Amino acid sequence: MHEDIKKIISDIKSLKIQGARNVAKAVLKALILQAKYSKAKNSKSFYDEIKHLSLLLADTRPTEPMMRNLLERASGYLYEKSREYKEKKQLNRLKNDFINEQKNYIKKIDEDAEKLFAYGARLVPDGAVIITHCHSSTVTGILKKAKRKNIKVIACETRPRYQGRITAKELAEAGIDVTLVVDGAMNLYMKKADLVLVGADSVTSRGDLINKVGTSTLAHIARMHDVSFYSAAELFKYSIMTFYGTREKIEERDPSEVWEKPPKRIKISNPAFDVTAAKYINGYVTEVGVIPPQSFFTLATQKLGVKIYE
Amino acid sequence: MHEDIKKIISDIKSLKIQGARNVAKAVLKALILQAKYSKAKNSKSFYDEIKHLSLLLADTRPTEPMMRNLLERASGYLYEKSREYKEKKQLNRLKNDFINEQKNYIKKIDEDAEKLFAYGARLVPDGAVIITHCHSSTVTGILKKAKRKNIKVIACETRPRYQGRITAKELAEAGIDVTLVVDGAMNLYMKKADLVLVGADSVTSRGDLINKVGTSTLAHIARMHDVSFYSAAELFKYSIMTFYGTREKIEERDPSEVWEKPPKRIKISNPAFDVTAAKYINGYVTEVGVIPPQSFFTLATQKLGVKIYE
Amino acid sequence: MHEDIKKIISDIKSLKIQGARNVAKAVLKALILQAKYSKAKNSKSFYDEIKHLSLLLADTRPTEPMMRNLLERASGYLYEKSREYKEKKQLNRLKNDFINEQKNYIKKIDEDAEKLFAYGARLVPDGAVIITHCHSSTVTGILKKAKRKNIKVIACETRPRYQGRITAKELAEAGIDVTLVVDGAMNLYMKKADLVLVGADSVTSRGDLINKVGTSTLAHIARMHDVSFYSAAELFKYSIMTFYGTREKIEERDPSEVWEKPPKRIKISNPAFDVTAAKYINGYVTEVGVIPPQSFFTLATQKLGVKIYE
Amino acid sequence: MHEDIKKIISDIKSLKIQGARNVAKAVLKALILQAKYSKAKNSKSFYDEIKHLSLLLADTRPTEPMMRNLLERASGYLYEKSREYKEKKQLNRLKNDFINEQKNYIKKIDEDAEKLFAYGARLVPDGAVIITHCHSSTVTGILKKAKRKNIKVIACETRPRYQGRITAKELAEAGIDVTLVVDGAMNLYMKKADLVLVGADSVTSRGDLINKVGTSTLAHIARMHDVSFYSAAELFKYSIMTFYGTREKIEERDPSEVWEKPPKRIKISNPAFDVTAAKYINGYVTEVGVIPPQSFFTLATQKLGVKIYE
Amino acid sequence: MHEDIKKIISDIKSLKIQGARNVAKAVLKALILQAKYSKAKNSKSFYDEIKHLSLLLADTRPTEPMMRNLLERASGYLYEKSREYKEKKQLNRLKNDFINEQKNYIKKIDEDAEKLFAYGARLVPDGAVIITHCHSSTVTGILKKAKRKNIKVIACETRPRYQGRITAKELAEAGIDVTLVVDGAMNLYMKKADLVLVGADSVTSRGDLINKVGTSTLAHIARMHDVSFYSAAELFKYSIMTFYGTREKIEERDPSEVWEKPPKRIKISNPAFDVTAAKYINGYVTEVGVIPPQSFFTLATQKLGVKIYE
Amino acid sequence: MHEDIKKIISDIKSLKIQGARNVAKAVLKALILQAKYSKAKNSKSFYDEIKHLSLLLADTRPTEPMMRNLLERASGYLYEKSREYKEKKQLNRLKNDFINEQKNYIKKIDEDAEKLFAYGARLVPDGAVIITHCHSSTVTGILKKAKRKNIKVIACETRPRYQGRITAKELAEAGIDVTLVVDGAMNLYMKKADLVLVGADSVTSRGDLINKVGTSTLAHIARMHDVSFYSAAELFKYSIMTFYGTREKIEERDPSEVWEKPPKRIKISNPAFDVTAAKYINGYVTEVGVIPPQSFFTLATQKLGVKIYE
Repeated sequence: MHEDIKKIISDIKSLKIQGARNVAKAVLKALILQAKYSKAKNSKSFYDEIKHLSLLLADTRPTEPMMRNLLERASGYLYEKSREYKEKKQLNRLKNDFINEQKNYIKKIDEDAEKLFAYGARLVPDGAVIITHCHSSTVTGILKKAKRKNIKVIACETRPRYQGRITAKELAEAGIDVTLVVDGAMNLYMKKADLVLVGADSVTSRGDLINKVGTSTLAHIARMHDVSFYSAAELFKYSIMTFYGTREKIEERDPSEVWEKPPKRIKISNPAFDVTAAKYINGYVTEVGVIPPQSFFTLATQKLGVKIYE
Repeated sequence: MHEDIKKIISDIKSLKIQGARNVAKAVLKALILQAKYSKAKNSKSFYDEIKHLSLLLADTRPTEPMMRNLLERASGYLYEKSREYKEKKQLNRLKNDFINEQKNYIKKIDEDAEKLFAYGARLVPDGAVIITHCHSSTVTGILKKAKRKNIKVIACETRPRYQGRITAKELAEAGIDVTLVVDGAMNLYMKKADLVLVGADSVTSRGDLINKVGTSTLAHIARMHDVSFYSAAELFKYSIMTFYGTREKIEERDPSEVWEKPPKRIKISNPAFDVTAAKYINGYVTEVGVIPPQSFFTLATQKLGVKIYE
Repeated sequence: MHEDIKKIISDIKSLKIQGARNVAKAVLKALILQAKYSKAKNSKSFYDEIKHLSLLLADTRPTEPMMRNLLERASGYLYEKSREYKEKKQLNRLKNDFINEQKNYIKKIDEDAEKLFAYGARLVPDGAVIITHCHSSTVTGILKKAKRKNIKVIACETRPRYQGRITAKELAEAGIDVTLVVDGAMNLYMKKADLVLVGADSVTSRGDLINKVGTSTLAHIARMHDVSFYSAAELFKYSIMTFYGTREKIEERDPSEVWEKPPKRIKISNPAFDVTAAKYINGYVTEVGVIPPQSFFTLATQKLGVKIYE
Repeated sequence: MHEDIKKIISDIKSLKIQGARNVAKAVLKALILQAKYSKAKNSKSFYDEIKHLSLLLADTRPTEPMMRNLLERASGYLYEKSREYKEKKQLNRLKNDFINEQKNYIKKIDEDAEKLFAYGARLVPDGAVIITHCHSSTVTGILKKAKRKNIKVIACETRPRYQGRITAKELAEAGIDVTLVVDGAMNLYMKKADLVLVGADSVTSRGDLINKVGTSTLAHIARMHDVSFYSAAELFKYSIMTFYGTREKIEERDPSEVWEKPPKRIKISNPAFDVTAAKYINGYVTEVGVIPPQSFFTLATQKLGVKIYE
Repeated sequence: MHEDIKKIISDIKSLKIQGARNVAKAVLKALILQAKYSKAKNSKSFYDEIKHLSLLLADTRPTEPMMRNLLERASGYLYEKSREYKEKKQLNRLKNDFINEQKNYIKKIDEDAEKLFAYGARLVPDGAVIITHCHSSTVTGILKKAKRKNIKVIACETRPRYQGRITAKELAEAGIDVTLVVDGAMNLYMKKADLVLVGADSVTSRGDLINKVGTSTLAHIARMHDVSFYSAAELFKYSIMTFYGTREKIEERDPSEVWEKPPKRIKISNPAFDVTAAKYINGYVTEVGVIPPQSFFTLATQKLGVKIYE
Repeated sequence: MHEDIKKIISDIKSLKIQGARNVAKAVLKALILQAKYSKAKNSKSFYDEIKHLSLLLADTRPTEPMMRNLLERASGYLYEKSREYKEKKQLNRLKNDFINEQKNYIKKIDEDAEKLFAYGARLVPDGAVIITHCHSSTVTGILKKAKRKNIKVIACETRPRYQGRITAKELAEAGIDVTLVVDGAMNLYMKKADLVLVGADSVTSRGDLINKVGTSTLAHIARMHDVSFYSAAELFKYSIMTFYGTREKIEERDPSEVWEKPPKRIKISNPAFDVTAAKYINGYVTEVGVIPPQSFFTLATQKLGVKIYE
């Protein structure tokens, strides 16, 4: 394997590369490098090389649907193309087409993010009070675009890792009025909120949202006060395995994140995520527009090119 | 003022004396000392001395209804007695009666706590999963009494000051199965809970509960899952001024509790309490028994000896 | 019957005298006049005179619990006193006592109202947005007292008779920031409201509120947004017959109030009141303090001197 | 022990005597018999005899709060009286007073029931559709009194023992329009119901209702449709031990009631009761009037003569 | 511009032409006239003429998605066709095709309405009590078709402009049993309702409904009683800009509609619309069938021929 | 008509053939037989024969959307093919194609069921407590597949016909931990449940579920406790007539099923089904995957090949 590809793999593993979009772009770059340095003699072995690397890349992060979906999409593209260019002499054309397709997609990831920010920013009412949780560059992207609307943001600190502080810092630096509060204070601030806006780790086929623990608590509290609850999520956040019934697993993280040196005999539970049912979500802000949660899987399926009826 | 009284006042102010019951007992001790060392020549000036000290003591903690109610009760007792023992030579008898009454009450505070613990422990179902918030010696008193029932406790860490850790430590040392979780995880654990049990800073005339911020979030989440929500509160936690319409003030504490050195331009809001409406509370565990929230003010009014119709 | 008494009766009937408190004071004045001009020869016939007049007065308004309760109270007082002063020569003393008692009560009605206003005003948070319905001098009394708190009032116009306009006018003249909206807009404004405050026609033994049609709609909408809902009601608004199971009757008023000359074949329903269940009410503001709806009947029963166990 | 008393005890045990009121009257009769045939030489040993019999009688039915409360009341009465009539020659007077008191109470049980029926009947709206569950002679007593109001009753059959059929039969014989439905159909009929009315096995200090399994399901469904839910319960149904925190135990009955000869390996759970939280109950219909669930314990405590503050 | 076209524009502006369908048909007629009288020399300039007129027509009513969608559709059709018929001599064929397409669509508007009425009428249960709000010819169209089902309609008067009276009159003339009530009485009548049926000003991409103020209040009250809530809306009511995140603006109308000559200092707020979230809506009745709110944008997008992925 | 076809028709009518899938397979077999023994001379008359038989078969069960949808699909297939093979000599090819298509579909029915079972089994959490109602081979198919997950099943007995016993027996024989309870006990067991899983008689265009009476009660109770509610339903359970507005009729079955020989004058209502609104359903488990209720009609429409815009 080429050194540059190894570097990408190790950077993802060591969290040097972070954020769903950055990871996705990095794995596409790895595929491009592989195509460039490939010594495959025919389309079959080229496809195998790419497929093999894809599996390695997918393993760098067990739960990143966006990256997995893009790797899947790339293999699918190559498979179709390789049937089209069957002849040997077409191998270079195949590689070039594959490289260009991935380059375009890298650009498209950022273009799609910009579209999503714009759609989200329009959704924010003038002078709105917005509650958010954890840190999501998709959410901060929207809020920065909506800055002119004179918004006020309440950021929950998001224990145990305080990602709410990252959100607060980023927004404050962008000149947005932001207040940090402890997670338990949600109910106190919800009364005056116009909107809850959170990111997404992944989205199930029923439109349920998998996101940082605390999200479902926030969504329940929003419902109690009939405040709108939106999640900003690219369609590639779709977790296709949930369509086939697989349950979302709730990762249990290291207890020391919650309490570094706890006294004996105290158990500490530190779940990474929770599930917010579609019924608590008003809509998803995506790169194609603002959609009801129940349509997420239809649109994502189309974008991924997955066929429902075989 | 006698040195021992000064010591009590400074110990309360410096938080050496903590917990609603301990503070209450300390101020009654101060009254006893005052009575012992009093140089008052007649019942009128004796009453004035006690009243004056009471006001000083009440000022040591602006929000401690239990202490305030007991000081009020002591003055009331003295006022009635001083009308009974009008003659000068009865002054010593008056002092003695007053001292004995306070001594009895100090004992009664602990006896009442024991009763409350017993009532609360009976309320806990066998094998119950109980969620609690913050630290309350009344709640831990109940849970320790209910230990034999094979209970499991989920303690919310209670940011910003992590009092949930004190609860977890105390229960673990008592051999109770306790799990500490971050506040945002409430909703995830509520599904399997049998009971929510919290303490009380004070209780309003409508039966609303003033308690550590996060309590009302917990109560709303409990309602969403139809889980019983109880608060353990001595009747002296009654905030009589709410009967006369005064709103509960939500103290705003130092932001450094939430984030010691935050970057610039980030506002931090750190409310100490929130209000849980009576409609979210199944009952209060008190020293006389387990009662509906709407009866709290009637029973507390009777115990305090306050007359509703003048 | 004395002319002045006849005048009072006709003024109540013709609505020259309006408002629960004014009507109550007027009937007590009528009793005083009767006592003054009475030619009764003994306490028995004096009692009969007063009782007879009471029934006439009660008939002037079929649904005014406050007036009825005060008439009932006056008879009860006279009955007890007449047993005390059995001898003939004590008749004048009896009349005088009776007259003084009623005079005191007339004064007390206004004093109680002032207390209620003060308790209610304390309950209003600083800078609060308050939604109200119909017109109630008890509500406007509170709001005027709370004016310094920099409140904003949303008055629902209260079709069909637009009493919301009276409220809006009275508050605007008092210098309060008031906005009039149509009744259907309730839900739109509830999101930003801190408090709903309405008056009371009567209160049942379960703590349910009988008030102008639209009140229960407002209460349901408040619950959907978890906004506090209070009613301002003197304890004499208690409808004792509901304790004995009698259902509240919903008066059906003239259809022309809704549409003066409707086309043919259209039915028009114009109910005067609706019932708001206790579970939607956070508390009642009364002359003794702010209480949970479930305590209304206990306190009212005590004030009225009704015995629960015969 | 006298044969007649033995007969009463065996009749209660063999279910020849049924229904809370009938059992209560039977045990009072047993006390009267004991007093008549007593050979006690002094008030102390008479009291011991009565107390001993009371314990035997209480054991005939482990869960009948009404009977237990009445036995408790009888002992209390005797204790007070025996202190009054200390002298030996007063023993007969003591016995007579005791007998008369119990006789009066037997009459009062029926008089109280009649009052309760009347209060309940007034509560039923004209032309109402009423859903009921299981069989309660208190409920059928009310419905028969309300017959003239042109009511329609939906009786849930109440598996496993079909007591709904007894209700349906009794009402049909009384000429009331009654429809029997399976328990699962509750939701289908709730949309058109005006009222749910059930009986009560016992009532806790928080106002929660212990009643035949299925009652809490009915109450939840009523809440979903905002239909009023009432329980008819004499104040003696109060379970005082719940005031002292003791949990209501849910009796598990014989599985053969559900399925006589089930195939192997199928577990059958057959709980006798469930608990309906006070927040789902609009009111209790009692012999003193219609009250909020939160007042049940206050009024019952007063009627029982229990002191809250010792 | 031709006089007949000017006439259409002025008739729409002066409200001589009213109702979403009538306005839509009028603007298509205007396009036909323009095509007939067009002096364009080539397809490019013909397209420009039509596009220019379309913008003028769209401006006659700022908020009429149906008209806007049809104008958009007409331009789209022309654009495609003009690429097909590129040659000059095909210009007449192009005009004719365009004219015929619009004529067909005018007919289709009415045919679609008829289909919608039929689908809606089937949805109405026999003997149903239906609550409606404001006036919508789509709703009255359905109700008239459902007349044989022996329905009863409750029409809310819909302050400030009393459009409920228009509904009541139209239905009464059609022989339907209709009762007019004030808007505040919603909650009183909901208990006995089977269905709420309203029209639609526009529908967002999330399936939210923009409609006359009071609609969201009605929807919340329906949810409280678990009564089905449907909106009748042609797919062309879809507001495509909400897909791209744009918020629905709530037009603020003239205060004199609420109170012609109000006293000084009273603010009057008169919002024209409110937003009912998809979660409160059971379904939309459309010309293709009865659909969940979440599918509205998918079907509307297909009908409009908008592509989601560019 | 061939004897074998007659046999199939009579077996369906006499309930010898039961279950939606078995009935569907049987009618396809009947079509195959008809094609085999057909004496039609041209494709037109062959189509007529098949269409005629389809109508006869559809009549054997008035409410079986799966069978109806498959018959409809078969006719549609034949219609298209017969236009393709117009020439006479192609008639045999047409018959063969038709027979093969039906044979394939019979196989596909079972394959689809297996897929559905697999998707559903993945959805079940490890160690889950699952509540179910009535008997559905689709539900038991899932549960048996999920057996290794160490599940516990609560089966409601499902009065009046006790189909819950069939479920309990089938699961117990498969070695699954199953507990049978009466229907009224739902609320008691819901507190500890992780999932409710039921079958489906049919599904409406809004995603509402038509299923055995008691299902909607279960769904409402699940919502009260925020427990997930899923229905297992093949896409062919789609009731297309609801798209066109037709209401689901609730069949009223024989009262003797509820009470064999009831006393006189008791009405018995025995509805077969009830309707569970989409808002109470988290998702449907189908043969293509787990989907939100709102997508059921889209996917079913595609599978059926129905065109939405004609």
